Parts: sequence; C-alpha cells; structure tokens
Amino acid sequence: MAFKPLHDRVLVRRVESDEKTKGGLIIPDSAKEKPAEGEIVATGEGARKDSGDLIAMSVKEGDKVLFGKWSGTEITLDGEEYLIMKESDILGVLA
Amino acid sequence: MAFKPLHDRVLVRRVESDEKTKGGLIIPDSAKEKPAEGEIVATGEGARKDSGDLIAMSVKEGDKVLFGKWSGTEITLDGEEYLIMKESDILGVLA
Amino acid sequence: MAFKPLHDRVLVRRVESDEKTKGGLIIPDSAKEKPAEGEIVATGEGARKDSGDLIAMSVKEGDKVLFGKWSGTEITLDGEEYLIMKESDILGVLA
Amino acid sequence: MAFKPLHDRVLVRRVESDEKTKGGLIIPDSAKEKPAEGEIVATGEGARKDSGDLIAMSVKEGDKVLFGKWSGTEITLDGEEYLIMKESDILGVLA
Amino acid sequence: MAFKPLHDRVLVRRVESDEKTKGGLIIPDSAKEKPAEGEIVATGEGARKDSGDLIAMSVKEGDKVLFGKWSGTEITLDGEEYLIMKESDILGVLA
Amino acid sequence: MAFKPLHDRVLVRRVESDEKTKGGLIIPDSAKEKPAEGEIVATGEGARKDSGDLIAMSVKEGDKVLFGKWSGTEITLDGEEYLIMKESDILGVLA
Amino acid sequence: MAFKPLHDRVLVRRVESDEKTKGGLIIPDSAKEKPAEGEIVATGEGARKDSGDLIAMSVKEGDKVLFGKWSGTEITLDGEEYLIMKESDILGVLA
Repeated sequence: MAFKPLHDRVLVRRVESDEKTKGGLIIPDSAKEKPAEGEIVATGEGARKDSGDLIAMSVKEGDKVLFGKWSGTEITLDGEEYLIMKESDILGVLA
Repeated sequence: MAFKPLHDRVLVRRVESDEKTKGGLIIPDSAKEKPAEGEIVATGEGARKDSGDLIAMSVKEGDKVLFGKWSGTEITLDGEEYLIMKESDILGVLA
Repeated sequence: MAFKPLHDRVLVRRVESDEKTKGGLIIPDSAKEKPAEGEIVATGEGARKDSGDLIAMSVKEGDKVLFGKWSGTEITLDGEEYLIMKESDILGVLA
Repeated sequence: MAFKPLHDRVLVRRVESDEKTKGGLIIPDSAKEKPAEGEIVATGEGARKDSGDLIAMSVKEGDKVLFGKWSGTEITLDGEEYLIMKESDILGVLA
Repeated sequence: MAFKPLHDRVLVRRVESDEKTKGGLIIPDSAKEKPAEGEIVATGEGARKDSGDLIAMSVKEGDKVLFGKWSGTEITLDGEEYLIMKESDILGVLA
Repeated sequence: MAFKPLHDRVLVRRVESDEKTKGGLIIPDSAKEKPAEGEIVATGEGARKDSGDLIAMSVKEGDKVLFGKWSGTEITLDGEEYLIMKESDILGVLA
Repeated sequence: MAFKPLHDRVLVRRVESDEKTKGGLIIPDSAKEKPAEGEIVATGEGARKDSGDLIAMSVKEGDKVLFGKWSGTEITLDGEEYLIMKESDILGVLA
C-alpha cells in the first residue's frame, strides 16, 4: 500500500541509531534531547509560495535524516511503522 | 442532500482502519496518536493566494486519505456522519 | 431595518436542523460538537487582499449554510434574532 | 474640541438601543453577548496596505453601526463620552 | 539634550487632562480605562514597508494626542519626564 | 578581539546614566521601568526584506542610544561587558 | 560521517570559553545568561524568500560564533558532540 504525503510532508522510516542499539542501553549524558534518525520513504510535492508556485523539497526518497525525537505522527502501513512529518522538522541529511 | 465545503475545506467520510475492525480491539502500542482514515466526498474550490487567485486543491473526490484523529467537525447529512476539515489537516493520500 | 455587514462578515438567520426539531430532543452521540444550520440574509463586500482589492464573497443571500455552533455574535433586528459572523466561520453550503 | 482618529480608527458616539431604553431593563435571553449600537462621529484616513498606500474606510461620519459591547477605548471630549475603536471592531452598518 | 526616536516611535510629553487637574481628584465613572493626553515632542522617520521604503509618520511635532494610559516607556531627559511609544499606540489627534 | 553582530543585531556598551551614578542611589519615582543608556560599538549588516535585500541599519558605531533595561544578551569580550541586542530593541538616539 | 544541515540550519562544535576553563570555575556575575562560543562545522543552503529563492547564509564553515546557551539540538556524529541550530540563533561572529 503506497502513501503520498501532502504538501511539504515526508514519510519517514525510523532507524535505530548505533548508540542505542549497542547493548540496548541509553545513557543520557545531557539534559538535552538527542534527535532521532530515519530514512525518507516518500515526499510530498512541496509547500506553496505566496505566489502559489511549488517550492521543491530539499530531501528525497532514500535520504538518511535526523529529526527531533518527538516530531511527526505515527502511521502503520501494511504492518510497518512510519512517521509523517513536515520537511521543516528534518534537521539535516547524513551523508 | 449535497454539501459544498467552502474555501480549502473538504468533506470526509471516515473509514474504519483494518487494525481497529479485526475483533474490534484497539491495542495502543505507542503513546503517540495514530491518524484516522477517510474518503474525500467533496472539496471546496481552494484557499486564496495573497493575490486573490485560487490555489487548486491537492485532494479530489474519492481519494483515500489519512488525517489526525481529532481533526474536523462532525456533521450529519441525510443520516450519515461526515467530517468537515481543512485540506491542511490531511496528512497524505493512500494509493 | 436593514443591516449591511462590514468586510467579510455575513448576517445569518439560524435554522433549526431536522434532527433537533423532531420531538425537541437532542441526543449527543459524540463528544464532538455538531455545526449549526442557517440562511445567509446579507453579506459584506468581502475582505481585502494585500493589494487592497476586494475578494468576492463565496456565499450569497439565500444560501443555506453550516457553521460552528458557537460562531458569531447575536443581534436583534426588528425583534428577530440573527447572527453576524465572518465568512471563514461558514463551513460550507447545503444544496 | 475636534478629534481626528489615527489610521483605521473611528470615533463613535454610543446610542442606547431600543430594547434597553424601554423601561431601562436589560433582559438577557441568551448567554451570548449582544453588540452595542453607535454613530460614527469621525474616522481616520485608513490603514495602510503592504505597499504603503491607504485603504479607504468602509464607514463614514453619520453611519449607524453595531460593534462588540466591549470594543474600544472611552474618551471624554468637551464633557461628552465617546469610544475610539478600530474599523475592524465594527460589525456592520444599520440602514 | 535632544532625542531622536527610532523607526515609528514618538517622544511624547504627557499633558494632564482637565478632568484630572481640577481639584486633583480622579472620579472613575466607568470600568473602562480612559486614555491619556500628550504632546508629540519628536518623531522617528517611520516604519518600513515590506519593500524597505519608509512609511511617513501620521503625527508631527506639536500634535496633541491621546494614547492608552499604560502605553510607552518613561525616560528622563534633562530632568524632564517623557514617554517613548510607537505611533500605533496613538489613538488620535486633538485639534 | 573584534565581534561582528549578525543580521540586525548591535553590540552595545552600557553607559551608566547620570541619575544613577550621583551618589549611587536609585530612586524609583514611578512604577514604570526606565530605559538604559549605551553606546553602539558594532552593528550587523541589517535585516533582510522579503525580497532578500538588506535594510540598512538606523544606528551606527558611536551612537548614544536608549534601550529597554532588560534588552539584549550580555557577553564578555577581552574582559569587558557588552550587550548584544536587535536594533528594534533600541528606543532612540541621544544627540 | 558527514552531516548536511537543512535550510538555514548550521552544525556547530561548541568551544569552551576562556573564562570557564581557567580553573574550571564559573563565577556568575549577573543574573543574565552569557552566550556560548562555537565553531561552524557545516551550513545549510539558506532559508527561502517569499519568492522561493535562497537567502545566502551569513556564516560559513570555520567561523567562530556566539550563540544563546540553550540554543540548538545536540547530536552525536562519530562519537563527537555537535549542535544543530538555526542561523538566527547565532548572535555574531568573533574575528
């Protein structure tokens, strides 16, 4: 079942970061929240400028991204968990 | 009785998602709210740009969509339940 | 006594919806608020774009409309009750 | 003493509505606040568009208007009470 | 010592209104706050439009104005008290 | 060590106002906060218009300015205390 | 592992300021928060104007910058700690 995000939203599959998976322990070394890691699965066509034209998305399918831990809305498609969030919730792309 | 949503609003018929209907049990596996599923029944003509021109809607009649569980206003037309919401409340289209 | 709403406001005469008038009982079947029904009695000339031009109203005199139950300000003209609200408070037009 | 409201403000002389003056009793028949009635005494030159041009006022001296009961700031000029409010606080014009 | 307000700010010398100075008594006849009276001593060059051009000020040195009683920041220049406020805090000009 | 403020920020060296330094006593004669005095040490290049062009700064190095007492962020450069604030926090220029 | 910040975000490596490292003592001499010091490691392509064009970044890789102590989101890349923040969180550049 395919899913096409609307406007400037993206569909993200959460990826467990290394730090967490080694031994499964999470060691908080700071009061600050760490971002989560994910992979872009699908993107919308982009938000619209005041003129009504589309603004191209800055991320594309397959990009590995970081995003705030509490960003997005969870959805289940064919039994798999995804997150729908706005491109502006994406902090940057890992390369 | 027909209903024409105004501006960038859409009329949505809620669809029960598979997960919920099998056995009727809802198993919360996350603190995060899951979106609801629906079908677009009618759409407005679109919001207006600063210039006053219309911005075409990104969804159309018949689209299967996901939206936040608490989005929209319930209305009853000819005994059937619908939701009126803004297009921006639609997270994406299932295809 | 005539009344001309200013800008993008409309004058609405509330119409009792069927559901409520049959027997006078209101059976709440949902925690969500249902919209109210009304008829447009008069409209303003429309809001203004950034450029200062008018944006034509999307509803006209005689339209049957739905609006949020708590929308608008009540006024009494010649002993009759009306509501003044903004066009954006109108959810859609019944046809 | 004359008073020239600035920008899109208007100077309003409150008019007691019929309902209230007959016998001086106010009978609240609804939880909703009723608007007040007044007459435009003076208007500003209008707000400015993004371009910096003036937007002409929609009301003029002598107009009988309705406005929210708590709108505006009271001022006393030559012993008489007036209200200064923004044109957007005016709900509409009685004709 | 001269003072040049920045942008759309004005320098105002508060003027005691008649009502207050006669006998020094303030008789509150309404729950609503009355505006204060003052004289424009200096003005900024004006705010800037989106285009970056200046918008000329609507008040000038010497204008007698009304403003909200709590508007502005007090400053002392050469032992005299003034108020710095934005032009938008000025309700209108007495003439 | 030089410091270049970004965008529409300015670097300000706080100047003790006369009133305060004579005898070191602060006599509050009003419930209203008085602004502080300072000197512009460095300025950014200015904010950007919607078009992306720069808006020239209204203050320059050496200007004596007034600003809200709680405006800005304190920084220490080469052992001296400065404040970084936005030009919009500057109330006006003393001349 | 490289990281490309999105839009107008920057990747910053926090630098301990002199004051703090000498003896390791932090002497608070003011109720006001002091900004933190860092070095720009990577920058996004810039935010977009209303027209959709990019606005070039005002900081570049290698710039020593000051930023609010609580700005940004911490991330760990190859075992090193960084901060992702918006350019607007940068107060200025040390030179």
